[in-house]
Amino acid sequence: MTIPTTPPSGFRDFLPEQVAARSRAAETIARVYRSYGFQPVATPAVEDLAVLTGQGGGENEKLIFKIMKRGEAYSRALEERSDLADLGLRFDLTLPLARWYSKHGSQLPHPFKAFNMGPVWRAERAQKGRYREFTQCDVDIIGSDSWGAEAEIISAILAVFKEFGLEGVKVHLNDRRLVDQALLAAGVPEDQRGGVCVSVDKLDKIGQEAVVAELTAAVGADVTAKLVASMLSGDGKAAEPLDKIMAAVVALTPGAAIVVDSSLMRGMGYYTGPVFEFRHASLAGSLGGGGRYDKLTAKFGGPVTPACGGSIGFERLMMILEEAGKNGGTAAPDAVVTVFSDELRGRSLDVGAALRAKGLSIDVYPGTGKLKAQFKYADQKKAGYAIVIGPDEAGRGVMQVKAMGTGEEQALTLDEACALIAGKH
Amino acid sequence: MTIPTTPPSGFRDFLPEQVAARSRAAETIARVYRSYGFQPVATPAVEDLAVLTGQGGGENEKLIFKIMKRGEAYSRALEERSDLADLGLRFDLTLPLARWYSKHGSQLPHPFKAFNMGPVWRAERAQKGRYREFTQCDVDIIGSDSWGAEAEIISAILAVFKEFGLEGVKVHLNDRRLVDQALLAAGVPEDQRGGVCVSVDKLDKIGQEAVVAELTAAVGADVTAKLVASMLSGDGKAAEPLDKIMAAVVALTPGAAIVVDSSLMRGMGYYTGPVFEFRHASLAGSLGGGGRYDKLTAKFGGPVTPACGGSIGFERLMMILEEAGKNGGTAAPDAVVTVFSDELRGRSLDVGAALRAKGLSIDVYPGTGKLKAQFKYADQKKAGYAIVIGPDEAGRGVMQVKAMGTGEEQALTLDEACALIAGKH
Repeated sequence: MTIPTTPPSGFRDFLPEQVAARSRAAETIARVYRSYGFQPVATPAVEDLAVLTGQGGGENEKLIFKIMKRGEAYSRALEERSDLADLGLRFDLTLPLARWYSKHGSQLPHPFKAFNMGPVWRAERAQKGRYREFTQCDVDIIGSDSWGAEAEIISAILAVFKEFGLEGVKVHLNDRRLVDQALLAAGVPEDQRGGVCVSVDKLDKIGQEAVVAELTAAVGADVTAKLVASMLSGDGKAAEPLDKIMAAVVALTPGAAIVVDSSLMRGMGYYTGPVFEFRHASLAGSLGGGGRYDKLTAKFGGPVTPACGGSIGFERLMMILEEAGKNGGTAAPDAVVTVFSDELRGRSLDVGAALRAKGLSIDVYPGTGKLKAQFKYADQKKAGYAIVIGPDEAGRGVMQVKAMGTGEEQALTLDEACALIAGKH
Repeated sequence: MTIPTTPPSGFRDFLPEQVAARSRAAETIARVYRSYGFQPVATPAVEDLAVLTGQGGGENEKLIFKIMKRGEAYSRALEERSDLADLGLRFDLTLPLARWYSKHGSQLPHPFKAFNMGPVWRAERAQKGRYREFTQCDVDIIGSDSWGAEAEIISAILAVFKEFGLEGVKVHLNDRRLVDQALLAAGVPEDQRGGVCVSVDKLDKIGQEAVVAELTAAVGADVTAKLVASMLSGDGKAAEPLDKIMAAVVALTPGAAIVVDSSLMRGMGYYTGPVFEFRHASLAGSLGGGGRYDKLTAKFGGPVTPACGGSIGFERLMMILEEAGKNGGTAAPDAVVTVFSDELRGRSLDVGAALRAKGLSIDVYPGTGKLKAQFKYADQKKAGYAIVIGPDEAGRGVMQVKAMGTGEEQALTLDEACALIAGKH
């Protein structure tokens, strides 16, 4: 049997510099979120299927990776022809947060400002730039019905983009209640509203002409004409609370580009008020988005709690940063200490420990072999320096320090070597 | 249908201070690993079942959470009565690393020093302190057959414990080849060796008497007597390479406690040489462990590559740190800016943004309500200060700053407030 060395379709391995860049970006996002007073929350990767299904997750509910029952429960289900799965991988961080808050809300400050970062899984058809495991970076305010909540969430996310030096992010804003009014005014039959929203939502992907064709086929030319006027006409009207949100975002983020967009839908069924999306010229889709979901926590048995949240599409952010040469992850040590011989390995290990104790990142060559191969190793690891301690150096209590960039070598004491290496970085 | 608000059995939610403590601990571990020249690696949560099974994962293979096939593949499998699952959640980080290295090794420095941190999943029977989702922090050297690799891995892990101020960690060391010799010398039939190892491995959990009883029932009194002499007698002999590993670890970590323990097994079938485990008096099980697994990467079709790795049991480390009051996570903002009225919310948002721009973590109250409730909120969030900007303060261009600890209040300008709050932290 051949064992695959590639990850399953739609899943990814990461090389050291990618992991370093991703970790650094995640730490930056967490730092900005924290600076706004959001507190970190974590939930498991796995949830009961009852939590994941029937809560307004929209199309994503069809994309759940389901986990099989185990042991006797599995045998029984097979025999009884009942459900073979009982658990699933989370497909977003919002449903788990709503469950989490329903359980722990009474112990928390009120309103509660949460941030929640981690992988989610969706069994999407694998295609370029679309993954089955990807990271989301959510920020939520639970327990506030103020427009200030939307303003803070949008501002915190814009602050993240600004921290990465990312220019040209545009915020699109709409309100689900305006969408409902438009559907009602245009005379869309109730059972067709979902389908109409799905069509309108494709506007930025397939263009107005294609959307109009879809709508005409579904609800006829008259209704479509009204929808074009109310939902596809470009800018919408900035009635309350959108006007207040816009004014606050612009005040908090001077130069922020924020527009009302009457065609903005956002897929999830759980949104109840303002919805928003972050777009960037270099992407067909969005860089993130969110909205108000006042009724979601009530599904877990508690009272109706106003809530609002937004999410950064981490994979897309990393893609833009990589293209702009701004991801800047490094996984290089300050120096590699070579090992002259097995007898002198102990001396190299000692020098490594001594330099490390002074705060440097020091890699002692982990194998055996010729110095040439060890210098190549130092080069591959992008180390600033390579250090040699042969019998002569060991006897004199010094080390040969080679600058990898220039090839320059000098015999130095431990303190001198430390000063040189620390100065370089 | 009632929707559960608790996570599935064996899975956990985390509150903000727990998440903060866990993130900080993970960052510390990564920093120490990096300081030894290890480079970060990441693989998906999900692997093909062919990667997870039949590679020497031992008992853990029975604990895989299996993911059901999707769409047509599922229907077909159901009809054909073939396997309904094709993917599984990883149960450790070693098998995924071996697969990863087999795929990417040619692009990497040689030998390759990896660190790999993340959650793993095992469908264990849920019990206190045993979870179905838990974090591992692995460090590996692939491509070196030197005893220096073991010495560095053990030293790096001891350096992590030292960084947390954790005293009294003891390293137990053995060699799988010594185990094989002992089994052969005692005359254990080949088909009973696995079972004997499983019994001996329980020594620190169930005690010598119970292990002897199990062995006697399995292989008889004579063979058991020989096993007691060779494997259960306590200290073992420190022949090469264990003597060199021990000497190097003690040199690198002055005061390190490291002993040869002839009863140490480590469960995984993939170990081929030295194995080691970290123990602490406050724990029944281990704080981590590892060993040499020279033949694992060859299972993925490449040449036999020497490799060695170790892992820190993150959940157990967090448990010990929590009990010692050393986990010290905080998720508190520097100050909460209250909101006097909806009209003045913009002013509060502005002050929040201005203080944040100076590097402070500032939480603008996200709701509406009385100042009393907002002060309670600042208290619950453990903020150092609460700031009030009423119509009077807004008119005078100042803010009322209240120290939450003492209750002392003063009217300050933005710069004065910033200096006060920054000084406090």
